[in-house]
Amino acid sequence: MSAEQVRYLLPEDAIPTHWVNLLPDLPGDPLPPLNPGTMQPAGPDDLTPIFPMSLIGQEVSMDAEVEIPEPVREAYALWRPSPLYRARRLERELDTPARIYYKYEGVSPAGSHKPNSAVAQAYANREAGIERLVTETGAGQWGSALAFACGLFGLECLVYMVGASYDQKPYRRAMMETWGASVIRSPSDTTEAGRSQASHPTGSLGIAISEAVEVAAGDANANYALGSVLNHVCLHQTVIGQEAIAQLELAGDVPDVVVGCVGGGSNFAGLAFPFVREVLRGNAKMRFVAAEPAACPTLTRGAYRYDFGDTVGLTPLMPMYTLGHDFVPPPVHAGGLRYHGDAPMLCGLVKHGVVEPRAYKQNETFAAAVRFARAEGIVPGPEPAHAIRATFEEAEAAREAGEERVILLGLSGHGHFDMSAYQAYLAGELEDPEFSERDMQEALERLPDAPAIA
Amino acid sequence: MSAEQVRYLLPEDAIPTHWVNLLPDLPGDPLPPLNPGTMQPAGPDDLTPIFPMSLIGQEVSMDAEVEIPEPVREAYALWRPSPLYRARRLERELDTPARIYYKYEGVSPAGSHKPNSAVAQAYANREAGIERLVTETGAGQWGSALAFACGLFGLECLVYMVGASYDQKPYRRAMMETWGASVIRSPSDTTEAGRSQASHPTGSLGIAISEAVEVAAGDANANYALGSVLNHVCLHQTVIGQEAIAQLELAGDVPDVVVGCVGGGSNFAGLAFPFVREVLRGNAKMRFVAAEPAACPTLTRGAYRYDFGDTVGLTPLMPMYTLGHDFVPPPVHAGGLRYHGDAPMLCGLVKHGVVEPRAYKQNETFAAAVRFARAEGIVPGPEPAHAIRATFEEAEAAREAGEERVILLGLSGHGHFDMSAYQAYLAGELEDPEFSERDMQEALERLPDAPAIA
Repeated sequence: MSAEQVRYLLPEDAIPTHWVNLLPDLPGDPLPPLNPGTMQPAGPDDLTPIFPMSLIGQEVSMDAEVEIPEPVREAYALWRPSPLYRARRLERELDTPARIYYKYEGVSPAGSHKPNSAVAQAYANREAGIERLVTETGAGQWGSALAFACGLFGLECLVYMVGASYDQKPYRRAMMETWGASVIRSPSDTTEAGRSQASHPTGSLGIAISEAVEVAAGDANANYALGSVLNHVCLHQTVIGQEAIAQLELAGDVPDVVVGCVGGGSNFAGLAFPFVREVLRGNAKMRFVAAEPAACPTLTRGAYRYDFGDTVGLTPLMPMYTLGHDFVPPPVHAGGLRYHGDAPMLCGLVKHGVVEPRAYKQNETFAAAVRFARAEGIVPGPEPAHAIRATFEEAEAAREAGEERVILLGLSGHGHFDMSAYQAYLAGELEDPEFSERDMQEALERLPDAPAIA
Repeated sequence: MSAEQVRYLLPEDAIPTHWVNLLPDLPGDPLPPLNPGTMQPAGPDDLTPIFPMSLIGQEVSMDAEVEIPEPVREAYALWRPSPLYRARRLERELDTPARIYYKYEGVSPAGSHKPNSAVAQAYANREAGIERLVTETGAGQWGSALAFACGLFGLECLVYMVGASYDQKPYRRAMMETWGASVIRSPSDTTEAGRSQASHPTGSLGIAISEAVEVAAGDANANYALGSVLNHVCLHQTVIGQEAIAQLELAGDVPDVVVGCVGGGSNFAGLAFPFVREVLRGNAKMRFVAAEPAACPTLTRGAYRYDFGDTVGLTPLMPMYTLGHDFVPPPVHAGGLRYHGDAPMLCGLVKHGVVEPRAYKQNETFAAAVRFARAEGIVPGPEPAHAIRATFEEAEAAREAGEERVILLGLSGHGHFDMSAYQAYLAGELEDPEFSERDMQEALERLPDAPAIA
């Protein structure tokens, strides 16, 4: 059976001992975040009200490797190393000479890659004496992950859940509550930020972030936890790519192209950055494809500017592709991808041409997801369905070119809490909402008066 | 980290090559099923209208091992071998000297142990030239598994879903449809059997079985597939216990007690039978605990009699503990356990005192499930929550006795499609419906006039 091996597993002691920090290897000088009041480079003091020092240290570290604390590795062992699959059935279905591998993060208790950072953040906060973490969640994946992680480390957990997802996914909420978290629909009347956004009842990640930051900043025993975008979150996710490198070695393959979906960028970073580093160092050559929704096309259509991470403007300004911090994306089912910006590290790689972004519409991504599910069994989340769609393009291109091509796909999570979206797709009722260039331009006009990026 | 190992994994080539057939090792002479018309022992001719010969052969085989076809092993490789966990966090939470292991079948694409038999049955039917499989589903686990398996082997799939589950779990239906199956709420007006049971709108497994059997028997290109109870289904599930034996060897432990939940018995059989065989052969000594719902207490309160497998009386009569084939259990959330009978092989082991049955109420099982989820991360299905409840009893008994005790728990599936039940539990709105001894007695009076069991 080994000639047809499907899953590549690693033993527990192959859980990485370090995270990969891409910051020192990035092209150009790092662009600092800016204090929203002074527009000067933000320092640790700007972050201490909401983050513990150890995470702030990770945020700005120029060490190429950061050691993973042993209690975090022990928590990882509940599901890591995650499996790498060779998609043999899908390859036959697509009639492609490409060899397709997917790294599956849906085996985590919360069902996505998010716990990789959640357990790291919960541990760091507990060590700092914090009693409660406050966060936001879009699709519910990050909120679930943090609820799970807080349970492991004995912290309280409060989650502001984007209104559209709260309504579409009542069971995500039940899952967070099962792990002991409290969940509030955003925008809510529990914060200034929420009350100011009552005119956007479907909410957005940006609004929910504002609410969570406001609560955390006002409570000395509470901190904030972000599930994507920031350097330390991307850092925590690099266990994914490191394991994939080891698993592909077992398979005897090296990727020609690495494909992942992008919301805030942490999933993409986690899979790709360990490979990107080898490319930046001249040790390897490969392409990187970042797949995003056409309804929220940050990397393909956004402006490369300094902007807030949240809607109301409480966070430091970050250098990134942005649709404008108060742009509210249409309510597509890939709730985890509805974010106006993206991780600064990832944006820099796009700017330098290392990562190629592509945008896909909702129906074509679900078509790809259903085809994937029927071939491989796993029902993917709507977010990685974008990466599956891009993978199909790569596989079809390989067939047309008549070339072998090794594709590594990041399958960041399952779709067990997204079946209403599948239901709508199968019934032909799924919409392809339009991105509004005009709304974006108006949102960009409301950008803070920050220095331009060179 | 190895001193605290949590997951025991096996490589792909450790997928068992044979299923374990307990029939030749069972105490006493095997009791044959009876033809419902003649009350004489049923032969292959009674089964050929709905099952392929290869499965009928497995149903009556007296070989101790049955070879697994290679295409079935290849399908298993999509998720097998499944992980065995040492529940270290739960042990600390329970403050018990017991060592608790759980074998987790929720890693299958359908989320439970059911695909172990579904792929075997889909393959056997495709080899026999069948184009369509018809089945029933209670909790939705079996229907999902068969939908998935039919997808892999290119068969059409029609699922009659028990009304109560159809209403509680719309997303299970969406999952089946995503894999390409058609789903009909039972009782339906598409069959004689369904129309005759319109007065039981919440339905039952027994009614849904009647509908599926009726459709399959009337279509030469279609067969029926049952997800539990029958010998060949129990047979297919024994990959679970065989892997667990190998994984416990890695851990250096042997169970003192094996605990599983019982609906029709296939999950319990799959985990326990490879261990039971060693006990029956005098090679080992251990206890076996079968956990069932107090609302449908087949093994603890049923009569040991010949009875139909379905409500209407289309199937052969089987020797088993039964609450009466037209007993309709209260609609508890553990839909997979709402069955009036149990696998004859398992019933024989209960009768001979090899397996000890215990019944638990709905709220106490959810309390155990939530505690498990907070300690181990995995949110269990309501069915294995019964086994978790029994495991807690064993762990508490070990603490009171001050003895080390090795407990092997069958965690047959996740609860991702059961979050409405968790929601109700957390809100204090979950009921503990009563088993009705009187209804059962009336149902038993309607039993067919079959020979008594010695």
